[in-house]
Amino acid sequence: MTKEVFERLLEEKHYKAIKSIFDTMNPVDIAVLLPEFEDKQLVLLFRLIPKESAAMVFTYLEPEEEQVLLEAFTDNELKTIMDDMFIDDTVDVIEEMPANVVERMLAAAGDKRNAINAVLNYPEDSAGSIMTLEYISLYPTMTIGDALKKIKSRGVHSETVNTCYVVEKHKLLGTVSAMDLLTCDDDEFISDVMEDNPITVTTLTDKEEVAQLFNKYDVLTIPVLDNEKCIVGIVTVDDAIDVIQEEAEEDFQKMAAIAPTDKPYLKTSVWNLWKVRIPWLLLLMLSATFTGIIVSSFEDALSRLVVLTAYIPMLMGTGGNSGSQASVTVIRGLSLGEVEAKDIFKVMWKEIRVSVLCGVSLAVACFFKIVVLDGMILHTEGVDKLVALVVALTLCATVICAKIIGCVLPIVAKVLKLDPAVMASPFITTIVDAVSLLVYFGVAKSLIPALA
Amino acid sequence: MTKEVFERLLEEKHYKAIKSIFDTMNPVDIAVLLPEFEDKQLVLLFRLIPKESAAMVFTYLEPEEEQVLLEAFTDNELKTIMDDMFIDDTVDVIEEMPANVVERMLAAAGDKRNAINAVLNYPEDSAGSIMTLEYISLYPTMTIGDALKKIKSRGVHSETVNTCYVVEKHKLLGTVSAMDLLTCDDDEFISDVMEDNPITVTTLTDKEEVAQLFNKYDVLTIPVLDNEKCIVGIVTVDDAIDVIQEEAEEDFQKMAAIAPTDKPYLKTSVWNLWKVRIPWLLLLMLSATFTGIIVSSFEDALSRLVVLTAYIPMLMGTGGNSGSQASVTVIRGLSLGEVEAKDIFKVMWKEIRVSVLCGVSLAVACFFKIVVLDGMILHTEGVDKLVALVVALTLCATVICAKIIGCVLPIVAKVLKLDPAVMASPFITTIVDAVSLLVYFGVAKSLIPALA
Repeated sequence: MTKEVFERLLEEKHYKAIKSIFDTMNPVDIAVLLPEFEDKQLVLLFRLIPKESAAMVFTYLEPEEEQVLLEAFTDNELKTIMDDMFIDDTVDVIEEMPANVVERMLAAAGDKRNAINAVLNYPEDSAGSIMTLEYISLYPTMTIGDALKKIKSRGVHSETVNTCYVVEKHKLLGTVSAMDLLTCDDDEFISDVMEDNPITVTTLTDKEEVAQLFNKYDVLTIPVLDNEKCIVGIVTVDDAIDVIQEEAEEDFQKMAAIAPTDKPYLKTSVWNLWKVRIPWLLLLMLSATFTGIIVSSFEDALSRLVVLTAYIPMLMGTGGNSGSQASVTVIRGLSLGEVEAKDIFKVMWKEIRVSVLCGVSLAVACFFKIVVLDGMILHTEGVDKLVALVVALTLCATVICAKIIGCVLPIVAKVLKLDPAVMASPFITTIVDAVSLLVYFGVAKSLIPALA
Repeated sequence: MTKEVFERLLEEKHYKAIKSIFDTMNPVDIAVLLPEFEDKQLVLLFRLIPKESAAMVFTYLEPEEEQVLLEAFTDNELKTIMDDMFIDDTVDVIEEMPANVVERMLAAAGDKRNAINAVLNYPEDSAGSIMTLEYISLYPTMTIGDALKKIKSRGVHSETVNTCYVVEKHKLLGTVSAMDLLTCDDDEFISDVMEDNPITVTTLTDKEEVAQLFNKYDVLTIPVLDNEKCIVGIVTVDDAIDVIQEEAEEDFQKMAAIAPTDKPYLKTSVWNLWKVRIPWLLLLMLSATFTGIIVSSFEDALSRLVVLTAYIPMLMGTGGNSGSQASVTVIRGLSLGEVEAKDIFKVMWKEIRVSVLCGVSLAVACFFKIVVLDGMILHTEGVDKLVALVVALTLCATVICAKIIGCVLPIVAKVLKLDPAVMASPFITTIVDAVSLLVYFGVAKSLIPALA
């Protein structure tokens, strides 16, 4: 269904037709469609959504449209929507709204208000902040029949019945799956069919760690416990997928020297793009002062053998690429929990061997490339075997330094509780540039008599 | 439980104790533990795993250990394990095994053999290749009571009952959730409670696209249809998470100029790391020949004003960083489906404006940095306002070129059906390096009378 169809129907006031089209559409698709309309039409269209999908559509809208709707809602409409929304989704909305809207929302929250406040108070990025409080709890002394009765009366208010939680005095004893409920006999006891030792997290567990548990154990929900081992909520797999995506995007942005932002590119203003990109560019430009100073201090040597300048871009480029190969590998390893800080010596030993292999192969290729291509074919002035040797040796040393720096810095950042991804390519490139120039001029001065 | 505990128990032949420890452990944790033992102990330990988790543990092992076990299994053991494994997991194992093991497995597959062959024949990276055939199908004319009876008899053989599929002559009509089955009355008809219009994919849909649908619609399973709209299998959310992770890691590797590999870093041999890293390093080193030629052709000018050399690293570094900011943003946008090829002009127009903003701000900062820091404070030889102007103008032009090249190349790659991620930073850096040097020397020659 395209925007034009709905515009036509709105114009001709075929509201019933719109209602029945909405009835066949997935709520997510309605939420993708609505933002294309201006505020007044948006509110009108939203009111035509069937009651059973309205809350769902609302949670999938962007904050801008949510605010427009919240401000247009009557108190009654607001209450209906909030009654149908899950606590975790409600908290997501509240976090993006201005104070006056939040106030109205909390006033309309009724008996959910305390629960909402509890979730709002957990630290950002914690399991508590992304959990939902709507889950089904069963007791060990219930039979399957009792459990089914309880779910029939409560089920529609819980985010998922795929896993139910068996508790005793709020302490989590185990889980019962929908599969168990559907396939066991009515008179069996919950305590006999439940799975012991479920995977759990605490309210303060980092949400990235929670997401990795979903990936490792292939579960659909993970219960969240407080300090007393009492269950306070559950995290569902759809939230875990969001976290995995967000964290990967953040790492991509940091590695490209961009300040993290979670807006889709095409919806981000030019001004905002500038704001997230300029700080690192400025910092890295200024830090290049060091490379400038190094080059200047060898001006004398360079003016006597200008051909050396021609290889600076290649040396720095290869150094940068080698370093970022090591750093990106280690940063992702740290993010995914495959590499830990205690592995630093294992990682270094591995990178030293890889870098020697890479360095030597590149140096050999580079030596022959310079002698044959630059010297014999292109007849570049000043190129001889000695220059080729200087460049090749520098290249080998640069690659080795770059890989060691590239693998060590992210781990050091992790130990210092900084973000390893910030240590990625651009930062490492600046350091590697300086090191490779120092090596280059050092080797040149000691091997080429004319420069001594 | 640490390796030492199990070694001690094995030594003293406390097999019953090991059995009861395994009984309390999550199958995934057992699968993480087993590879620490040598082959003979591995087989012995595996035979002590409770029957109901053995197949699960097996699917979570690495291919090396799976092969050891498969070769040690009796025909009976092999059949038991394969009976308990889901088709998608079985196919994953088969794809990693040598021919003789595959033969034995297929021979033991019994009536699953045709299904396994069907999945094996779907193209790599298609929905068909990751789907499972174990799902529950219901008919529209059944009552909830009939459905419950069917699930009781079949349920344990299906990967999930959280969503059941309503079919008529194999054509998919809708879905019924476990929630519906648990909360509706026994005499209601399936056709009355089912959801119409489920999200579906075809057997040939790219698996990355499938994963994005899970993310967009927050569903737990997606049915896979053939050309005749008949349901042939389902993809489950745990496989979707694996795809999302794999694709992100592949993009990370390509952006860091590493050939894709899916082994964890610490388990990859030095030799293999060298193999995935050296091709791009060699290619990029050789392509730097162009920058070398450009620098050489301006040797004359450089020898007359050597200070110009000092700014080459900064210009190339900033150009590279600006370009990769744009390219990484666009590449991820393409991967996530937020940006499409048809948006190329929108993207270019946005990047042109952002790059002018970034370029001008960097140029102004750079001009004053050179005049004040390099000139007045460090007294670098040859630095004056004219040199500062040349460098600042070049910097601005370089940033603008870099961002335009950075945003256009990935989209062009997409249109040419190449992988956009391969166009990432290292490749773009090489082009930007060449462009920025040409601009630099061009501007220098036209503005500085001494070089003309």
